[in-house]
Amino acid sequence: MAIDLTYDPVVREWIERTRTFTREHVLPIEDKFLGDVTAAGGDDLRRELQAAAKDAAVFAPHAPREYGGGGLSMSDRAPVFEEAGYSLFGPIATNIGAPDEGNVHLLAHVASPAQKEQFLAPLARGDVRSAFAMTEPAPGAGSDPSALTTTATRTDGGWRIDGHKWFITGADGAGFFIVMARTSGTLGDRGGATMFLVPADTAGVTVGRHISTLDRAMIGGHCEVTFDRVVVPEENVLGAVDEGFTYAQVRLGPARMTHVMRWLGAARRGHDVAVAHVAHREGFGSRLGDLGMVQKMIADNEIDIAATRALLVTACHALDLGDPASNETSIAKTFAAEAIFRIVDRGVQMCGGLGVSDDLPLARLSREVRPFRVYDGPSEVHRWAIAKRAVGAARRAAAKEQP
Amino acid sequence: MAIDLTYDPVVREWIERTRTFTREHVLPIEDKFLGDVTAAGGDDLRRELQAAAKDAAVFAPHAPREYGGGGLSMSDRAPVFEEAGYSLFGPIATNIGAPDEGNVHLLAHVASPAQKEQFLAPLARGDVRSAFAMTEPAPGAGSDPSALTTTATRTDGGWRIDGHKWFITGADGAGFFIVMARTSGTLGDRGGATMFLVPADTAGVTVGRHISTLDRAMIGGHCEVTFDRVVVPEENVLGAVDEGFTYAQVRLGPARMTHVMRWLGAARRGHDVAVAHVAHREGFGSRLGDLGMVQKMIADNEIDIAATRALLVTACHALDLGDPASNETSIAKTFAAEAIFRIVDRGVQMCGGLGVSDDLPLARLSREVRPFRVYDGPSEVHRWAIAKRAVGAARRAAAKEQP
Amino acid sequence: MAIDLTYDPVVREWIERTRTFTREHVLPIEDKFLGDVTAAGGDDLRRELQAAAKDAAVFAPHAPREYGGGGLSMSDRAPVFEEAGYSLFGPIATNIGAPDEGNVHLLAHVASPAQKEQFLAPLARGDVRSAFAMTEPAPGAGSDPSALTTTATRTDGGWRIDGHKWFITGADGAGFFIVMARTSGTLGDRGGATMFLVPADTAGVTVGRHISTLDRAMIGGHCEVTFDRVVVPEENVLGAVDEGFTYAQVRLGPARMTHVMRWLGAARRGHDVAVAHVAHREGFGSRLGDLGMVQKMIADNEIDIAATRALLVTACHALDLGDPASNETSIAKTFAAEAIFRIVDRGVQMCGGLGVSDDLPLARLSREVRPFRVYDGPSEVHRWAIAKRAVGAARRAAAKEQP
Amino acid sequence: MAIDLTYDPVVREWIERTRTFTREHVLPIEDKFLGDVTAAGGDDLRRELQAAAKDAAVFAPHAPREYGGGGLSMSDRAPVFEEAGYSLFGPIATNIGAPDEGNVHLLAHVASPAQKEQFLAPLARGDVRSAFAMTEPAPGAGSDPSALTTTATRTDGGWRIDGHKWFITGADGAGFFIVMARTSGTLGDRGGATMFLVPADTAGVTVGRHISTLDRAMIGGHCEVTFDRVVVPEENVLGAVDEGFTYAQVRLGPARMTHVMRWLGAARRGHDVAVAHVAHREGFGSRLGDLGMVQKMIADNEIDIAATRALLVTACHALDLGDPASNETSIAKTFAAEAIFRIVDRGVQMCGGLGVSDDLPLARLSREVRPFRVYDGPSEVHRWAIAKRAVGAARRAAAKEQP
Repeated sequence: MAIDLTYDPVVREWIERTRTFTREHVLPIEDKFLGDVTAAGGDDLRRELQAAAKDAAVFAPHAPREYGGGGLSMSDRAPVFEEAGYSLFGPIATNIGAPDEGNVHLLAHVASPAQKEQFLAPLARGDVRSAFAMTEPAPGAGSDPSALTTTATRTDGGWRIDGHKWFITGADGAGFFIVMARTSGTLGDRGGATMFLVPADTAGVTVGRHISTLDRAMIGGHCEVTFDRVVVPEENVLGAVDEGFTYAQVRLGPARMTHVMRWLGAARRGHDVAVAHVAHREGFGSRLGDLGMVQKMIADNEIDIAATRALLVTACHALDLGDPASNETSIAKTFAAEAIFRIVDRGVQMCGGLGVSDDLPLARLSREVRPFRVYDGPSEVHRWAIAKRAVGAARRAAAKEQP
Repeated sequence: MAIDLTYDPVVREWIERTRTFTREHVLPIEDKFLGDVTAAGGDDLRRELQAAAKDAAVFAPHAPREYGGGGLSMSDRAPVFEEAGYSLFGPIATNIGAPDEGNVHLLAHVASPAQKEQFLAPLARGDVRSAFAMTEPAPGAGSDPSALTTTATRTDGGWRIDGHKWFITGADGAGFFIVMARTSGTLGDRGGATMFLVPADTAGVTVGRHISTLDRAMIGGHCEVTFDRVVVPEENVLGAVDEGFTYAQVRLGPARMTHVMRWLGAARRGHDVAVAHVAHREGFGSRLGDLGMVQKMIADNEIDIAATRALLVTACHALDLGDPASNETSIAKTFAAEAIFRIVDRGVQMCGGLGVSDDLPLARLSREVRPFRVYDGPSEVHRWAIAKRAVGAARRAAAKEQP
Repeated sequence: MAIDLTYDPVVREWIERTRTFTREHVLPIEDKFLGDVTAAGGDDLRRELQAAAKDAAVFAPHAPREYGGGGLSMSDRAPVFEEAGYSLFGPIATNIGAPDEGNVHLLAHVASPAQKEQFLAPLARGDVRSAFAMTEPAPGAGSDPSALTTTATRTDGGWRIDGHKWFITGADGAGFFIVMARTSGTLGDRGGATMFLVPADTAGVTVGRHISTLDRAMIGGHCEVTFDRVVVPEENVLGAVDEGFTYAQVRLGPARMTHVMRWLGAARRGHDVAVAHVAHREGFGSRLGDLGMVQKMIADNEIDIAATRALLVTACHALDLGDPASNETSIAKTFAAEAIFRIVDRGVQMCGGLGVSDDLPLARLSREVRPFRVYDGPSEVHRWAIAKRAVGAARRAAAKEQP
Repeated sequence: MAIDLTYDPVVREWIERTRTFTREHVLPIEDKFLGDVTAAGGDDLRRELQAAAKDAAVFAPHAPREYGGGGLSMSDRAPVFEEAGYSLFGPIATNIGAPDEGNVHLLAHVASPAQKEQFLAPLARGDVRSAFAMTEPAPGAGSDPSALTTTATRTDGGWRIDGHKWFITGADGAGFFIVMARTSGTLGDRGGATMFLVPADTAGVTVGRHISTLDRAMIGGHCEVTFDRVVVPEENVLGAVDEGFTYAQVRLGPARMTHVMRWLGAARRGHDVAVAHVAHREGFGSRLGDLGMVQKMIADNEIDIAATRALLVTACHALDLGDPASNETSIAKTFAAEAIFRIVDRGVQMCGGLGVSDDLPLARLSREVRPFRVYDGPSEVHRWAIAKRAVGAARRAAAKEQP
């Protein structure tokens, strides 16, 4: 039988361990930070949680084995990351949070042996955090990366980087940045970008204000970062010069999917909290969970969870086969970001006044998941890309038929 | 011609003055409190804003003329309140915020002349704030008011009130409470409640914690309040004994509609901010506002705004004719609460990263408007009531046809 | 009090008479044609129904009084047309069906006295039917009228018309056509069109095939019509030469709204049938109408009906004030076409197997109302127009502020 | 690597052959029957198509190999059935249409060797058609099977069946019926039903009227069937007495999924037709397929197709593992029935006037797919079952935690 959706025993153990660890060790800590503005608790808490995760053998399931990780494929990461995402702090604890997790993935694929030693190894161990510095304020690189304005110019034995980035997740406290800068071509070109590894203590690197956003759980915030005559040596070029956009694609598809895995865990928690509430709360002569309109919300949540998970399986399988899977990951990300929001929003509604309060985690979850419809490509940009492919295929098919 | 939707010149002037005042005097102040947790600024700010509102002749458009108000009908309040609601602080400034506005309405209809002098007059002038103490934690009075557990028992020359309330909007700093307590009947009875006027400094009244919620703009918060052997004299009974649920209906329909008016103003501001953004921001070789998927969001917002306003007109007209208009206000409230959320949510999406940040007011507005689908009756309870009426009518019609 | 939504006694009598007539005389006949492909029954049935309508004093409520009609304003037509639309044959019976009703409106506003005598008078009396010949197959005039390809060229004492039209509602059996043809300018120009009155028996006029569509209730079908060297005299120009697009606007706004009125009646019937069904049908230990998920569908229908009606009131009031009300009618049409579809679709779902069968009228209604989201401007074109206005206004406002 | 979503070469060949056959041999024939009321073309056409399918080696992919079929698992059926479903006549041609396909499945699992020879073999070969007679008019067995009123009572050496069934798909022309009848227990019991194999020519079996429904493609229609003192011998009991509901479950899950497979194919055809249309049709100075609102519809269709397919993979895998998979199949069916409707409906909208006409297959497809939200359990019943499981699990979990 060809089709097989069952997980290996080793993976099932990862799932189970992560599930137990998240619920027993992480959730109780998360709940202390419910109303807290800088909710992630900072690096002290991170180190404490990560030590516990190492003890529980749930640390870095995704990192290469030679760097102490579990070496799980994308397909196998899905259920493990979902379990970690059940708590907002679970990904930090297990070292699979954005952007570090995507950076580990990128470095594992593109970095030189020396770069792996210097940057990947401490990142995989949780010794440092990192940030991916691509997005710029308008009119620079945002949803449309070709608008990249940060530049890198050759100097003696290296490169000088100048530019202004923002929404750089995890920047505050990061040990190094992967910086995307234009090295050739002009504004609007879909080529000519290069990635640089920039230690945070390099002269000219300034982490500016935290941009206050609906989500608060990201350790290190979403910051403005400026690069002012920052000089790095040649060996800090990540991969080949002018190939930055290609590598960005390497990072992009998997990073989209791991976002979905984690947020799906969060959505599932929201759903569980709501179902537990309505299962017992009474009103209108019945338990709420036995009323049809509430049942509809529960069933819609179950459907959204199942469909998100199923699309994730499809996209991860394609990625594991070595396909860039741009269409599959766009579809899964777009559906998931909207479904996850709906799931949490229905959870809020099921719990009424409690749902909009911090007495339950639902209000907070609703804030945390909203930006996912914008981050990693707004739904509109993904839909545009999906439609372009479909229309392009139809035109090619028609051209072929009518010579 | 019978149907007439044009406003009197006097009302048009109220609209215009309120519009100017809100945009020129209130919005700039609101923007200072964007990221602030206790955003409403407190009573000092309130007094400052209200003094300015009096100078601008936009204070208390709804209060009876004999108490210094504008005496506007429900139909005429709609566009005026919408203009005030354009800023989150506009209703506070013009003294039409919840719950004071609904309490003014209730006192004007039910209070005795002495009660009006003692409670309504200072409330209409903005000298004090008030709170409406009905909601109780489960299993008490929530969406289902018949579950009322707070009791009032006769004492010599008065009443003794005992109970635990929560989600009491504006409680912290209120000068007095209108308290709903059971005076006869048993749990589940749809009668037997009485309203009491309780000065906040009465012995036994304790304002407890602020319940932290998604919305932050309500001055005085949403609080827990306990009434522990609180004694009030007979003359503090509001209206007749055991008629509390009837009076609650008097307050309920209009209060629902004024909520809609104010939140519609807030939604319209969110929409305006988003449209102004996409009208000029460029991306993908075009201005965003000229892209079809963005145009769809804009048009859907325009449709939602127009439909909310049209349903408001219908319901207010019915209320002005003296109809309790339970069905019309349920329909308008349910549609509006969902439409207002959609409007702001689309605004967030149109503005992308900025939309989820506090660099624009949209993120905050999205938090403020979410609870409206729960407050004033969750959508599910309104839908249940609407459907019950429709099915009941169908059964009566069938019974009549087949004797 | 300025705002007034009550109808004059005269109008209330029109409503009541039309309601009684439609239910007692028309519905029983409609039900005979349920599964019938050419359901409208043809002109014999039309004449029979119209005679009955005249007897019942419900004929031509919209036509000018001097032509025997009721002379009702747009606002007053709304509830009367809705009652007639309660049966699919009601509009035919009362002579307010498309396209005759819109043509009466157009002729009353634009035709010369002689044209009124020749064309409007018999149309208002129901002696003939008419058709409005504007739409052309791609790449001609469709959603984008400026693509008009039919031409009219001057001859001695008149005009020669050549072109190919389709989706011409009511063409088969029409006594005359109002034909839109290009008289100046070139393809894509938003001017240069002229309207012509063309008797159906003019040489060169050919009514071709009926285009088979989801809807079947339109008498005279949706046909292809060709105009091959059709010659008409100068006096058959309707209004001024080159002003055709302007007059089309005169017809367009009101015609959109009367469509909404009629289809709202049809949707309401679908809703009533479904509610009557679930009010008594049992299942799962309850009557279906008491189950929450069914109650949700009922309430959503009630909300959609109320919102459609409220938007109609707003738009009609604007039209009655002499405003072209392009935005108001676009909003009302777009919302209504989608709401009406949802209402009937929910009705189908509530009735289950019966709902998708011809044992109830719901299956048929679901086919009849679907094309309304396309006819009279697809929802996408209306949304585009609505958004363009909003974005244009934002740009003008910004330009004014920043000189 | 555990997770594998690739198909065996043998299955890939089935997919490819079925795809070619459906498009080259079946679609051209389907298109001749577009406007036809009794569109399925009858058994003559069926036999002709089935002969061609046998020649093309695409006949009966699902039937057991010993009966000449392909013996494909549920997982492997999914892509093959989807290809067959691309034409409304494809399932008939390849002998995988409802209800025969489900009956083959049921007989393969439950029938005795003699019954297999008598009933399964000719059915698998396409020599006869069959029908599954369970549904009854209200208040009998419908969405709630426990309301079963048809009875079977023991006679000498056999059983006598009496009852009234309706919506019996394929009844007209069927060679035999599988009849569900109550053999013990009383109305409302979830046990006590037995299945009987009843040749159509048995005395007392009457196939009544065809119930006219929105869908027309089912050969043999949806009919009323009465069983009036129908006597069958003991050997015509299918499986064990009183176990009918258990066997119905055996049939139900897989039958739901094969419905989804086939209708997904139909939806995909509608989508392809629409995309091909907008890829080239011009309007508003652009090709329609390049306009944002159209792109949104295309992308939403792609997402709905991908999610339906992914949920199908999940559910079929569970069924292949021997799980009844009630929840998985309920989720997949509910999502799919709604998604398929949306896909076709958006296709209609993309094609405008053509979309609602029979000039393209979309109007017809929109009618064909609508009832799927009702057939095989209305969405509301599935949601109720899904929610009950979720709430039940929450209650059990809480009971375990709080002893």
